[in-house]
Amino acid sequence: MDSEEIVKMVAEKKIKMHEIDKYAANGGEAARIRRKIIEAARGINLVHIANSSIDADDAGQRNIENFVGATQVPLGKVEDDLRVNGRYAKGDYPILLATTEGKLVAGISRGVAAINEAGGANTVVVNDGMTRDVLLAAKNAGEGQEIAELVKSDEWRAFIADEFSKYTKHGRLVEVRPFVSGRYVHLRFKAFTGAAMGMNMVTIAANATAKEIIKRLEGKGISAMVIGESGNMCSDKKPAYINVVEGRGVSVIAEAVIPREYIVKKLRTTPEAIAELNKAKNLIGSALAGSHGYNGHVANILAAMYIAYGQDVAQIVEGSQAITDASVNDDGSLYISVHIPALEVGTYGGGTARETQKEALMLLGLYGDGDKTGKTRLAFAEVVAATCLAGELNLLAVESSGDLAKSHAKLKR
Amino acid sequence: MDSEEIVKMVAEKKIKMHEIDKYAANGGEAARIRRKIIEAARGINLVHIANSSIDADDAGQRNIENFVGATQVPLGKVEDDLRVNGRYAKGDYPILLATTEGKLVAGISRGVAAINEAGGANTVVVNDGMTRDVLLAAKNAGEGQEIAELVKSDEWRAFIADEFSKYTKHGRLVEVRPFVSGRYVHLRFKAFTGAAMGMNMVTIAANATAKEIIKRLEGKGISAMVIGESGNMCSDKKPAYINVVEGRGVSVIAEAVIPREYIVKKLRTTPEAIAELNKAKNLIGSALAGSHGYNGHVANILAAMYIAYGQDVAQIVEGSQAITDASVNDDGSLYISVHIPALEVGTYGGGTARETQKEALMLLGLYGDGDKTGKTRLAFAEVVAATCLAGELNLLAVESSGDLAKSHAKLKR
Amino acid sequence: MDSEEIVKMVAEKKIKMHEIDKYAANGGEAARIRRKIIEAARGINLVHIANSSIDADDAGQRNIENFVGATQVPLGKVEDDLRVNGRYAKGDYPILLATTEGKLVAGISRGVAAINEAGGANTVVVNDGMTRDVLLAAKNAGEGQEIAELVKSDEWRAFIADEFSKYTKHGRLVEVRPFVSGRYVHLRFKAFTGAAMGMNMVTIAANATAKEIIKRLEGKGISAMVIGESGNMCSDKKPAYINVVEGRGVSVIAEAVIPREYIVKKLRTTPEAIAELNKAKNLIGSALAGSHGYNGHVANILAAMYIAYGQDVAQIVEGSQAITDASVNDDGSLYISVHIPALEVGTYGGGTARETQKEALMLLGLYGDGDKTGKTRLAFAEVVAATCLAGELNLLAVESSGDLAKSHAKLKR
Amino acid sequence: MDSEEIVKMVAEKKIKMHEIDKYAANGGEAARIRRKIIEAARGINLVHIANSSIDADDAGQRNIENFVGATQVPLGKVEDDLRVNGRYAKGDYPILLATTEGKLVAGISRGVAAINEAGGANTVVVNDGMTRDVLLAAKNAGEGQEIAELVKSDEWRAFIADEFSKYTKHGRLVEVRPFVSGRYVHLRFKAFTGAAMGMNMVTIAANATAKEIIKRLEGKGISAMVIGESGNMCSDKKPAYINVVEGRGVSVIAEAVIPREYIVKKLRTTPEAIAELNKAKNLIGSALAGSHGYNGHVANILAAMYIAYGQDVAQIVEGSQAITDASVNDDGSLYISVHIPALEVGTYGGGTARETQKEALMLLGLYGDGDKTGKTRLAFAEVVAATCLAGELNLLAVESSGDLAKSHAKLKR
Repeated sequence: MDSEEIVKMVAEKKIKMHEIDKYAANGGEAARIRRKIIEAARGINLVHIANSSIDADDAGQRNIENFVGATQVPLGKVEDDLRVNGRYAKGDYPILLATTEGKLVAGISRGVAAINEAGGANTVVVNDGMTRDVLLAAKNAGEGQEIAELVKSDEWRAFIADEFSKYTKHGRLVEVRPFVSGRYVHLRFKAFTGAAMGMNMVTIAANATAKEIIKRLEGKGISAMVIGESGNMCSDKKPAYINVVEGRGVSVIAEAVIPREYIVKKLRTTPEAIAELNKAKNLIGSALAGSHGYNGHVANILAAMYIAYGQDVAQIVEGSQAITDASVNDDGSLYISVHIPALEVGTYGGGTARETQKEALMLLGLYGDGDKTGKTRLAFAEVVAATCLAGELNLLAVESSGDLAKSHAKLKR
Repeated sequence: MDSEEIVKMVAEKKIKMHEIDKYAANGGEAARIRRKIIEAARGINLVHIANSSIDADDAGQRNIENFVGATQVPLGKVEDDLRVNGRYAKGDYPILLATTEGKLVAGISRGVAAINEAGGANTVVVNDGMTRDVLLAAKNAGEGQEIAELVKSDEWRAFIADEFSKYTKHGRLVEVRPFVSGRYVHLRFKAFTGAAMGMNMVTIAANATAKEIIKRLEGKGISAMVIGESGNMCSDKKPAYINVVEGRGVSVIAEAVIPREYIVKKLRTTPEAIAELNKAKNLIGSALAGSHGYNGHVANILAAMYIAYGQDVAQIVEGSQAITDASVNDDGSLYISVHIPALEVGTYGGGTARETQKEALMLLGLYGDGDKTGKTRLAFAEVVAATCLAGELNLLAVESSGDLAKSHAKLKR
Repeated sequence: MDSEEIVKMVAEKKIKMHEIDKYAANGGEAARIRRKIIEAARGINLVHIANSSIDADDAGQRNIENFVGATQVPLGKVEDDLRVNGRYAKGDYPILLATTEGKLVAGISRGVAAINEAGGANTVVVNDGMTRDVLLAAKNAGEGQEIAELVKSDEWRAFIADEFSKYTKHGRLVEVRPFVSGRYVHLRFKAFTGAAMGMNMVTIAANATAKEIIKRLEGKGISAMVIGESGNMCSDKKPAYINVVEGRGVSVIAEAVIPREYIVKKLRTTPEAIAELNKAKNLIGSALAGSHGYNGHVANILAAMYIAYGQDVAQIVEGSQAITDASVNDDGSLYISVHIPALEVGTYGGGTARETQKEALMLLGLYGDGDKTGKTRLAFAEVVAATCLAGELNLLAVESSGDLAKSHAKLKR
Repeated sequence: MDSEEIVKMVAEKKIKMHEIDKYAANGGEAARIRRKIIEAARGINLVHIANSSIDADDAGQRNIENFVGATQVPLGKVEDDLRVNGRYAKGDYPILLATTEGKLVAGISRGVAAINEAGGANTVVVNDGMTRDVLLAAKNAGEGQEIAELVKSDEWRAFIADEFSKYTKHGRLVEVRPFVSGRYVHLRFKAFTGAAMGMNMVTIAANATAKEIIKRLEGKGISAMVIGESGNMCSDKKPAYINVVEGRGVSVIAEAVIPREYIVKKLRTTPEAIAELNKAKNLIGSALAGSHGYNGHVANILAAMYIAYGQDVAQIVEGSQAITDASVNDDGSLYISVHIPALEVGTYGGGTARETQKEALMLLGLYGDGDKTGKTRLAFAEVVAATCLAGELNLLAVESSGDLAKSHAKLKR
């Protein structure tokens, strides 16, 4: 069917806009037709949105419906490559940030220079596993607890791991934690997911496994049913403490010791001023605000990197629950760390397949094609955490370089 | 200087990458040179990143440093235009979502169809004002409290509003709330910001005003100093309860009453199942998880819209603290609402100036050029909230359409 | 009726246990009869419970139903009287603590000695007002917001304050803050309550006023109804951030500067060790725990004082959300403060009328009989906060006096 | 020495008040002398405080320093004995409440009557274990993570359990969970504690064990030190989410199904009204308030029982983080549950040894003398939870019996 006809059919409501894919020559043509319809309806030309080099057919399968083009987010390069000394990331990484916030790239660049001066950021992965909480209803709390006990029993653990493995090629169940509250039972599945961020794979496998669990429970005379694909104890795209305590995705720490001289001369502040500001703002200020995030602007760096590297951007919510620490060492140098309990990232699948995003990951040497070990993903998490450290250091340095560093004596404290 | 020479100077470390702008013919050329350097260093061709129609000079001034091109995020159109009945947004809005999460556009489309069937989403703005908390150190808590009392006094309020207005053309101070804790004093400035999201303008004006406050305090023999441009009680890009209680940006509610028949026939679930799932998952599940977000996936919709419409993406963190309510009305229909206490959006300035983002806003008829009333911004907030409502409705419908709607009787509750 | 007969009637289920008061000579006799019945039923003699000097008739009217005697909680005196330099509390206060936790009195005594050495604790009241949130249902969010706007309007504010004053002799309305979420409207009333803690008076007046508001709304064609005497945004006896942001009861800070020498010689630790422990434990540790309480054991002191002084013991929950800060001053001394945002106390009414509790308050010189200014209550709040400061100081000193103070060098940080 | 002489020595500051115990004939005499000194100093007679039947010598060893007498808290008996069907508590329990809040005993009595009508409360223990978090400092995050991995290793687990058992007769280590953040390492010990609440025993054993861990780490070339006896991830006497997720003390659920007719006729409300109020107030209202407690007034019942039964009263803070659920069953009856994640109680040791408290426990048949299984403690936790259920049911019934139950139609929802 030619495009004119298709436009006409949509106008006459014979077909829906999403059905254009069926009739158009290909995804790109379908996008063109959709734009035409929209432009006509509103009298706005989508010139720039049209300027996309995305493979519309591939994107249409993986990432988007009713594809019409692309949003272009400006991409900037952090001045110096960032040195990271992690278990997985080792070396100098060229960081790209996709943002429209002026000064962000410049600020991170300043933080990276300081970290590189210190020999790079040291990074440590303290936990790994994607989670999904399947929500069950039981007859009452008593039977809920019976379910919980069975799920934790050695016998059932084997059966559950076995079932789980049937529904995923790359995922590997780590544990299932049951939580009973009233007559609801939450089963929080946690799995290793290779190079992928893995939420979809875990969701599918967890829900399929939960159905098998319910069948087996029936054999024991216990009725239960799945009432929610997710019961919010995962917890996905909401700020939640369970992710701080239990971790979600990668839990990672980045730290560095910055020489005093560098801080005084180049950052024009002092380790003491940075440490006090961190306590007053990121710890006490956050406490007063009722915050889950004890940091300056970790979400800023996450947003810029999640967009640039094809991550699930809404998951910066969990990442924002980071904790920044700063202290003065005995030798007068500054210790600074950022601890991000829930960094859900992947180097393969999802948005990483998109053209610009893949280029960015390849530039890092961390595109995860063929990586079953998950090492590219863990390395990427370390690089992200190290970049957040640069962002935190820079923010604390800038804010403390005014009165705090200069005129403390004024208050005669 | 020609590009070869510039590349050479960077290689020889005579100039830094960000200085290329000074020597290159224009921003686009500078970006090309940077890509060349990066490509050479890593052996990766940034073909797609190069495919940008962004005005590099303009972007370089507003949005980005070390510009190298663009990340392309796939953009999909929600099937039907969304009907919104708000105070500011009135009519049918064509929604674009920038995402790489498959099924998101399709899901929202399904929710929008249900809402349109109900006559559209009703939206209400319950609060408006961008905030910035300036952090002061006082000599002790007693003087801290004196400062707080002065700041709240009628006389000082006038002086403060006056000072504030000197540092911003479009912002208008609404209030300053002081919070004293130990010997720290937080001054939380709140301002109307016209069409702009306005965080920068408020930050600048608040900090300048704080300095004037400190001068005037000295006149009264009270020493204090600004020790943080922000004290985290704003609270920006961290999940924090102060934003739920006090609001930040636009606080907005979207609601709809969906006919029972539509839910049963089209969504293949029941109002009862949706209401129970909402309670079990979004309320109790979130409570158990220690969550600040009592919803299904509001952050998902925010992320897709914040990218598409040029917002500050990291601010989806605050937006994620939304509360979804669902109940069954006496006539069997479903009431559903989403309350988003902190939706920090703008229709002018920041990322909205970028080409694709501007096209998206223009398509909505809500690009804020010349809008001093802020009505385009408030209308946009209403549209965003209504889209979130569509997302929540769809998620609850999908998840509850399984066993929950069909086989409740099994548990003999 | 004689006691034998009454016992028989209860046994024959002719009267309920709480009806004994009607037939017995007086409250004391009624208690004796109840004990007899219970003792007979269970074969346990309530010898000590019987040993009460409580005026059973008075207690039966104010404090308790089915009175059977008293729980005796051991009472200890803090070694030295505590010096407090507040706006309301000025002088040396003999503190009694009712507790069964060994070493608590000793620990507080140690903290008090240190504070006295520093010249006493300075205390500052930063907020005052008892709150009650009345929960309304509106037809929809739009009407909910209309209600909120009316409640905040100048005209209605006068009417509301006027109504409120009709239902309370000693309370005086400070403000009503409306919060709309979905189609629920919360009206958070805040009032000055004289010497009383005042929750009951505020509850009664707020609910009566809310009913008048609803009547007046009807006059404007807006339907609404009170669906909860409390909507949990008060927030009473639950840990909630609204109390930190908005305050509840008295918000108070106690602080002191402890000489370095005293800390080193008497407390056998250092200001540096105390400051680091406070940051690592009370700030970062609490952040990691998902805590609302950034302190060591403020609730411990509150519990011991709330029992001893006849307060509403369950309200230690709100008090536990305290924030402890510790820093090293330029001269090497230690600054320490405790900020308690929600200290709901009274010096008259409720449990303060009971014999032992009244004696304890009289010993402080703060029994509130006849005090309409609330100054005894505010002074008592300052004394409580100062005692909490002593407790925090002692805990930090004890815990940091081990390796932290001695052997930091070991880690070569 | 006779009492006159002792008084004189204190007056002359030759001895401190707490040293009186050394010179007085016995604890009772010492208390009398202290009262005399205090009375003289302030001119207040402590007549009622003196009226104590506490064994001063025993209390002085276990519970209190500078003992001067007792606070008498009025004790009331819940009208009917409460029927509990738990794993540990089975039967009808006579509940005593120590409170000065009028109507509390009456309200609980009303709730108990409703629960008994339903056949009693069903209770389920879902977790058990007292916790203490020992705070370590490591050289850096990398070594911190090494420590965490060793602590979780099979080999070390055996060694740690073994060490732990050396420092406690009745405690039994369940697990140690390490949490690394920056260069701090938290070791959260969890132990079974027999009949005792057990915090002290766990604190002692955990800290002693931590010191052994540090020694063994040194053998591996890893430096670390204990910097806090507690690192606040226990979390004791602060409201903290870790206790909801991981539990502390006993995690227990109480539930009941109340016949519709009873609710309508006796409680004069409806299951629908109760369920809606619970959602609007305890779930959404708490969410809006930034609360950790999703209930009405659980802390009230806990306070009254913790005092009456000799518990550590400050621990009601953790208990207040309870979740109340209410729904309407298919047959129109009401399901109601209370889930208390952190109920730290004991039936032996601490305050349970005191005379009145012990009588109260004996009346329940749950004094834990000689109970190594912990069954009396778990039964007591079930009884407490069931009483909280009665309190929640009554509160919801009372509050919903007004407009909510009668006139919902008015809003035409």
